[in-house]
Amino acid sequence: MATPDFPDFNEATIAAIATPPGAGGIGIIRVSGPQSHAILQQLFQPKNPPKKIISHRLYFGAVVHPTTGLAIDEVLAVYMRAPQTYTREDVVEIHGHGSYLLLQEILALIVTFPATRLAEPGEFTKRAFLNGRIDLTQAEAVAELLRAKTREGASLAVSQLRGGLHGEIWKIRDALVAVRAIMEVAIDFPDEEVEILDTKALQARLVLEAAEPLSRLLARAEGGKIIREGISVVILGRPNVGKSSLLNCLLREDRAIVTELPGTTRDTIEECLDIKGVPVRIVDTAGIRETSEAVEEIGIRRARQKLEQADLVLLVLDGAEGPHSEDRVLFQVAADKKVVVVVNKIDRALPLSCAHYEAAFPGVPVVAISATTGEGIRTLEDAVYGAATGGHGLQEPGVAAPNVRHAVALQRALGAVRQVGEGLGADLPPDLLAIDLQGALAFLGDIIGETTTDDVLDMIFAEFCLGK
Amino acid sequence: MATPDFPDFNEATIAAIATPPGAGGIGIIRVSGPQSHAILQQLFQPKNPPKKIISHRLYFGAVVHPTTGLAIDEVLAVYMRAPQTYTREDVVEIHGHGSYLLLQEILALIVTFPATRLAEPGEFTKRAFLNGRIDLTQAEAVAELLRAKTREGASLAVSQLRGGLHGEIWKIRDALVAVRAIMEVAIDFPDEEVEILDTKALQARLVLEAAEPLSRLLARAEGGKIIREGISVVILGRPNVGKSSLLNCLLREDRAIVTELPGTTRDTIEECLDIKGVPVRIVDTAGIRETSEAVEEIGIRRARQKLEQADLVLLVLDGAEGPHSEDRVLFQVAADKKVVVVVNKIDRALPLSCAHYEAAFPGVPVVAISATTGEGIRTLEDAVYGAATGGHGLQEPGVAAPNVRHAVALQRALGAVRQVGEGLGADLPPDLLAIDLQGALAFLGDIIGETTTDDVLDMIFAEFCLGK
Repeated sequence: MATPDFPDFNEATIAAIATPPGAGGIGIIRVSGPQSHAILQQLFQPKNPPKKIISHRLYFGAVVHPTTGLAIDEVLAVYMRAPQTYTREDVVEIHGHGSYLLLQEILALIVTFPATRLAEPGEFTKRAFLNGRIDLTQAEAVAELLRAKTREGASLAVSQLRGGLHGEIWKIRDALVAVRAIMEVAIDFPDEEVEILDTKALQARLVLEAAEPLSRLLARAEGGKIIREGISVVILGRPNVGKSSLLNCLLREDRAIVTELPGTTRDTIEECLDIKGVPVRIVDTAGIRETSEAVEEIGIRRARQKLEQADLVLLVLDGAEGPHSEDRVLFQVAADKKVVVVVNKIDRALPLSCAHYEAAFPGVPVVAISATTGEGIRTLEDAVYGAATGGHGLQEPGVAAPNVRHAVALQRALGAVRQVGEGLGADLPPDLLAIDLQGALAFLGDIIGETTTDDVLDMIFAEFCLGK
Repeated sequence: MATPDFPDFNEATIAAIATPPGAGGIGIIRVSGPQSHAILQQLFQPKNPPKKIISHRLYFGAVVHPTTGLAIDEVLAVYMRAPQTYTREDVVEIHGHGSYLLLQEILALIVTFPATRLAEPGEFTKRAFLNGRIDLTQAEAVAELLRAKTREGASLAVSQLRGGLHGEIWKIRDALVAVRAIMEVAIDFPDEEVEILDTKALQARLVLEAAEPLSRLLARAEGGKIIREGISVVILGRPNVGKSSLLNCLLREDRAIVTELPGTTRDTIEECLDIKGVPVRIVDTAGIRETSEAVEEIGIRRARQKLEQADLVLLVLDGAEGPHSEDRVLFQVAADKKVVVVVNKIDRALPLSCAHYEAAFPGVPVVAISATTGEGIRTLEDAVYGAATGGHGLQEPGVAAPNVRHAVALQRALGAVRQVGEGLGADLPPDLLAIDLQGALAFLGDIIGETTTDDVLDMIFAEFCLGK
């Protein structure tokens, strides 16, 4: 290679708009690769030209069209010299006034430069990974950060981004590498086997430094899953029991918190609530809005269809009217799901007390609310949160949790580690055990991206947005 | 004042998210005011702490919660020392990974600092104006830049932002100030009046240096208005003549250009076309989509209502079917508007040639198209562009054009200048003329923001988005 200290010299320079479309004060174009500096020099005219562009310093000036000489936009521009950059390559950022049309015009100019093209979604982060600045769990965290629907979800991703998971897996990996080293000595000196392989000590070490940390990581995966993916809730009930009012009431509560700050995106997310950090998706809200259907019309089959995607069912009853035989039909339809019974309309006179409903639906949480006044809504949210988390609470802040991909690999690694432990007890030959150990290391390597296949990498980076 | 070299010391520090909500690679929080540096120091932990934070340099690190000590996000942060900043105040920018939830969390932390609050829409730019970095035309240009729907509109705004208009008005202002100085001498030395006031020379100077430049500016206002505001087009026609197909065809043409670059926002703008730089809004597209209504059903009254907002009417005829009496009824309804007759379905056999339609609608442009094959669509776009611009073309790129507010003030200034000229001819006393001259100067002062009232300022800055 021509420049051995710059492994990506032959790679294309990539460029993308890194800020979302829409009205904002600042819009950014990000460029990464060997052409970055040349592009900046040819398109950017600093207002007070410096003797030399200093790395990581913002300069004020204009992007000027190289042929017409017309200023396209006033900008701040920065050149960041490799390797202290997001991608470990030379990076240039151009910060315009936020007109997406002008950002597009500048981007179109940039990609006319030689060996320069539009970046694919996630390509900046992919380069950060391929150039060794971050591992695969950190790259995944970047995508998760943008997908996160609650603050807790975003925090989880930041912990992972900052190497939370990476560090723990690296530690287990080191322990397994050490055990493997001991086994290799035993393989090389088979006659001294007994002396070298202190089976009990090695077993204890595998448990303490591999199996237990792996189990602890796996235990965290569940809490992480809820924060990441949230739960799907179906609001079920006869017509006019107040399903639609309940939905609006929940949305209002949520918005009241969110809109403490202006500029929230919440309005564009369709019916997704943030209940104490758990993203709660209300499924089939269109169905909820049609309050005039009778249960007969829906039919049990259709109700079942609705429920297919649900993790939790809110069965709404009309407390003012009292129990109804159709309520029980719906409850039976939802029998194989987690259910919370919601007795609505408690702002009116109730023919029966809540205790009656608790007796009628034994073992099921019953919450009395008024979707009109909002009374009881917090208790209902607690019940939804409790059902979502199984009463265990969420992953504590600042601690990363494995995602589904990691959990599968962790489970396999744990299986391999246990097999080694059992093999040691059964006095299996160390070269056989070393193979299992190698398997465990490969599973961990998959997680951090050491041994991950291109297919998996492509799948992971395809989930990114442009400019990331 | 405690610190006379820092006029805004007593002002609050303001903060806002400066990037739009949505999926992006970078999200920015902007802070401006005396607390900026203290906020950065307390919230930001650089990865490699420098001896001293250098102005305008990007540092990598994390925003850390001051009480929990947990990292909220990995960021690049920059401190920009006054006055070389957007607002001429101390400015801090925090560039996060683009999670809007985390940006909100960081923003919420920032506004807990003393004398710090959320910025109002446009407040950063307002401070840039109040602190004298930009004049009012430049501040207006910032808002226009973000509103611009075509590249040409954005370019117009950039010209203005870079002082295009400001410079020209300043020049006229200087000329008027010079003329006023001469008159003041004449006022102070009334006996020598004749010698000092060379009426002809002053008149010539007023024409050359004020009236003519003012007229030239005014002439440009019209072209600017079309780029800024675009035109409203109504597609009119009997049922099934192909109104809906025509709309789709126009949208397709437009999108084909726009989607050369990914990530376009165009999909979210409802039925707004970019025809050679003119933003063309298709009015009442809902009406177009209902193709089953008969003219009788619509009624002439309803058609008239539709036309009220229109600058241009596209009257679509069914060329395959030939002329129809209802076409003529619709044409008469649109009689007081600019009309382009669109003969659709030329991909089929036409009973009558286009010449027939040209004869039937004398003086009206007739364009033959096929909304199915796209044939003739470019010609139709040319006709729409011609009708929009009155055949004069758009404002040339790189040259600013006055907006409506400016045009009103320019017109008044021109009136006052002419009055001074006439007064000189009629030998009116110089102290009277000086009053008119002062009036002209005040009108120009209104434009650049020297003498603008708070009401007008509030109105202008209320149109901004947050973070600008």
